[in-house]
Amino acid sequence: MLEEQVISNAEELLKKIEELHPSDIAYSLKRINKENHELFFNTIKQIPDELLGEVILELPDYLREDVYEELSIEKLTDAVEELESDDATDIIQEIEEIDENKAKEVIDGLEEEDQEEINWLKRYDQDEAGSYMQTELFSANLKETIQFSINRLREGKESDELVNIHQVFIVNDDKKLIASILLEDLIIFDFSKTYEEIINSHEENKFKPFIVQDNDDIDYVAKQFEKYDLSVVAVTGFQGMLMGRITADDILDVIEENATEQMYQLAGVDEEFEQDDNLLTIAKKRGFWLFLNLGTAILASLVIGLFDDTIQSYVALAILMPIVASMGGNAGTQTLAVMVRQLALGDIDFDNSKDAIKKEVFISIVNGFVFALIIGLIAWAWFDKTMLGVVIAMSMVINLFSAGFFGAVIPLLLKKFDIDPAIGSTVLLTTVTDIVGFFSFLMLAKIILL
Amino acid sequence: MLEEQVISNAEELLKKIEELHPSDIAYSLKRINKENHELFFNTIKQIPDELLGEVILELPDYLREDVYEELSIEKLTDAVEELESDDATDIIQEIEEIDENKAKEVIDGLEEEDQEEINWLKRYDQDEAGSYMQTELFSANLKETIQFSINRLREGKESDELVNIHQVFIVNDDKKLIASILLEDLIIFDFSKTYEEIINSHEENKFKPFIVQDNDDIDYVAKQFEKYDLSVVAVTGFQGMLMGRITADDILDVIEENATEQMYQLAGVDEEFEQDDNLLTIAKKRGFWLFLNLGTAILASLVIGLFDDTIQSYVALAILMPIVASMGGNAGTQTLAVMVRQLALGDIDFDNSKDAIKKEVFISIVNGFVFALIIGLIAWAWFDKTMLGVVIAMSMVINLFSAGFFGAVIPLLLKKFDIDPAIGSTVLLTTVTDIVGFFSFLMLAKIILL
Repeated sequence: MLEEQVISNAEELLKKIEELHPSDIAYSLKRINKENHELFFNTIKQIPDELLGEVILELPDYLREDVYEELSIEKLTDAVEELESDDATDIIQEIEEIDENKAKEVIDGLEEEDQEEINWLKRYDQDEAGSYMQTELFSANLKETIQFSINRLREGKESDELVNIHQVFIVNDDKKLIASILLEDLIIFDFSKTYEEIINSHEENKFKPFIVQDNDDIDYVAKQFEKYDLSVVAVTGFQGMLMGRITADDILDVIEENATEQMYQLAGVDEEFEQDDNLLTIAKKRGFWLFLNLGTAILASLVIGLFDDTIQSYVALAILMPIVASMGGNAGTQTLAVMVRQLALGDIDFDNSKDAIKKEVFISIVNGFVFALIIGLIAWAWFDKTMLGVVIAMSMVINLFSAGFFGAVIPLLLKKFDIDPAIGSTVLLTTVTDIVGFFSFLMLAKIILL
Repeated sequence: MLEEQVISNAEELLKKIEELHPSDIAYSLKRINKENHELFFNTIKQIPDELLGEVILELPDYLREDVYEELSIEKLTDAVEELESDDATDIIQEIEEIDENKAKEVIDGLEEEDQEEINWLKRYDQDEAGSYMQTELFSANLKETIQFSINRLREGKESDELVNIHQVFIVNDDKKLIASILLEDLIIFDFSKTYEEIINSHEENKFKPFIVQDNDDIDYVAKQFEKYDLSVVAVTGFQGMLMGRITADDILDVIEENATEQMYQLAGVDEEFEQDDNLLTIAKKRGFWLFLNLGTAILASLVIGLFDDTIQSYVALAILMPIVASMGGNAGTQTLAVMVRQLALGDIDFDNSKDAIKKEVFISIVNGFVFALIIGLIAWAWFDKTMLGVVIAMSMVINLFSAGFFGAVIPLLLKKFDIDPAIGSTVLLTTVTDIVGFFSFLMLAKIILL
C-alpha cells in the first residue's frame, strides 16, 4: 500500500522528511501554511537541498511565488542544482517572472554545464516538445561495449544524475540517434559486446527508436504516447542529433491539462488565468466571455423586439418562448461536447466529418419530433388553443435541427480555420439556437395564430 | 521521426504488416473497411496471429463486434493466446457480450494456465485495479541470485511472454511482495549476489515498492500515478500477495476517458452510450437529459406566467427578460466547470470548499455589478425609461450572485452525497438561474415600474 502521509506538525515533518515523497511534503506544507504562514517559511527553509526543488515544484502556484521571494539566492541555487534540467528550467523561468535579477544570480551560481543546458531549454516555447524534455539520459556510442557504458550508468546513478532510466540511446560519432535499447533487452545481452555488434546481430527494426523533434507540438507528442503506448520518447534536433527525452509522467500532466483547458473553454473560462492570485483578474477574464454572451442575448432580444405587437396581443407567447430557445441550447451543447471531444481525441477528422454531421442531425431531428409532440400537447392543454401547440411543436423541430446541425458544423469550421474548436463555439452556438428559437416561434405564431 | 503509415491498399498492407505498429494497421483497416467491407474481412483474416489480437484491440467498437462474429473460433483463440492477460480478458469479455458460447469455446482452446488467469481477471469489476492489471511480470524470490532470475527473464523475453519490463518484483516464499528493484539499479549490481543480500546492503526504503490493492478503484490508482510520477505499480491481493502490475500507458487511457466522461456529463451526454451503433439509442439517452431540461424550462415558464398581466401592460419586459436568465446561466456554467474540474483533480476538497465558494461568489458579484451597469444603461437607452434600467440592473446582480453561489454549492453538495458532481449539476443550476432570473426581473418590474 502506498503510505500517503500528511503531517501538519512542522517539527515532525522535518524529522521524517527523508522518508517522505516530495508530493506528500508539499501537501503537508500546504496544511502548515494554512495554520501559520510564518511557520511555513521557517519549515521550508530547513528542507534539505536534495528535496527542496522537487517539493517547490509540487506546491501550488501561489505558494511557489512566495517561496521564490522568501528563499535566499544561495538556497534556491542549491535546490535548482539538484533538479533535472527540465525542472530546473521551469523554476528558473518562474523566478524570472517575479525577479529577473534574482533568476540571473541563481543561474550564475550553477555549474557551467547546467547553465548552458538551462539557457538552451529556455529557448523553447512552452508548447514545444523541447520544453518538456530532460537532457539527462543514458546514451552510448555505437562502438562502446555494453560493460563500458554500464560503468558510466553506475557513476551517473551514484551521483544521482541519472534517474528514471528505461533504455540506452545509441548514437554515432556525430551524436545522431541510431537506436534505442530497452534495459529489459540490454540486461540479458553479453556485456562484453559492442552496441554495433548487438544491433547488427538483430533484425533491422528491433531497436528502432521512437523519436519526436524538439520543435514538435507537445500535443502531438502526447498523441504519439497514447497511440503507441510509449513510456519514453527520444527528442532529436538538427540533423537527428539526440537532444533529450520525454517520459510518460510528463505526458500524464499534459493530457490532464489539455482536458481541463477544453472543459474550461467550452464553459467560457480561460484556464491560464484561473490560478491567478488576484480574483479581479479572474473576474475580468470570465467577464470577457460573459460580455460576448451579453451580445448574443441582446441580439436575441432584438429578434423578440420585432414581434412586440404579436406578444402584446397574445401574452402566452412570452410565457412559452424561452422553452424553445432553452431546448435548442441544450441539444446544441450535447452535440458540441461530443464533437469537440472527438475532434480532440482524433476520433473525428475531416475524412469522416460528413458522417458525424449526419449522425448529429439525425439524432437532433429524432429528439426534435419527440419533444415537439410533448411540448405541443402541453401548450395545447395549458392555453387551450390547438394552433399554439402546433406552432411551438414546429418551432421545436426547427430549433433542434439547427442545434444539431450547427453544433456539429461550428467546431468543424473553427478547426478548418485552425482555431481551437472549443474556443468560442458555445457562444456561437447559443447565438444560433437563441435566434432561431425565438424567431421561428414568434414568426410562426404571427403567421398562424394572428 | 515516428513513421505513421496508413496503407489503404490491402495487398500492400499485408506485405508490409510485420513492419507496422498494430495501431497503424488498425487505422489502415478502418480505411479499407470504408471502401469495402468484404475486403476488410478478407484482410483481417490474413493478419498473422501474433499481431491479430493487438490489431483488434485498436479497432473501433463497431468493427470489433463484426470481427468477433466473422472470425473463426480457432483464429480468435490463436489471437487471444498471444496477448497479455489483461488484454486477453478484455477480448474474451467482449466476445461474451455477443456470443457466450463462442467465448466459452475460445477459452477452452487456451492453455490451462491462461484459462485460470482469464477466469480470475474476469471477476474484477471494470473500475477495479484488478481489471487493469497484467499478470505477466518479472518477479524473483528473495533467495535467488540476480543471475538466476535474469536467465528466467531471457526465457520470458525469447518466448515473447515478458514485455514492457521496468523492474523486478521481489517476493518471499509466501509470494508476499517485499521489494521492487528498477532495472536501472539491477543492471549495475553484482549478478552473483542474491536479492536478499542486495536489499540488506541498502537503506530500508530504497526498494520500497509502490503498491495498490487489486480492489482499489482505478481512479484512485490514476491519482497515485499522477501524484508520484509512476511508470508502474504493483498490484497485491490477499495478504499482500503479488497479483500483477499496472503500467502508465493504461493509466493514460483512464485519464483521457475520465476527462471525456466529465465533459459529457456536464453537457448532458452519457459517454457509455455514445459509441452505440444504433443512433436511436443515442437519441434516447440524450433525450433523457433534454427531458429534464424541458421540466426546468416549463418551471421557468410557470414563473413567467405569474406575471402575464405585468408583461401585457409593458411588453419591453418580454423583450429583455431572456437576457438576465441567459447571463445567469453562463456565469453559472463558468463556475460549475471550474468547480467540477478542480474537485476531480483534487485541487478543491471539503477542507477548502469554503474558500472556493467565497472566491466564486466574489467573482460573480464583481461581474454582476459590471454587467448590471452595462445592461442598465442599454435598457434605459433602448426603451427610454430610467427605472427599467434600474430593474434589469438589480435583477442582474441578484441572478449573477445566485449563479456563482449555486454553481459552487451544487457540485459540492452532490459530492457530499457521493454523487458524481458533474452529473445533473448543469440541469440543477439552470433551474436556479432561469427561475431566479425571470422571477427577480419580473417581480422587481411589477413593484417598481407599474
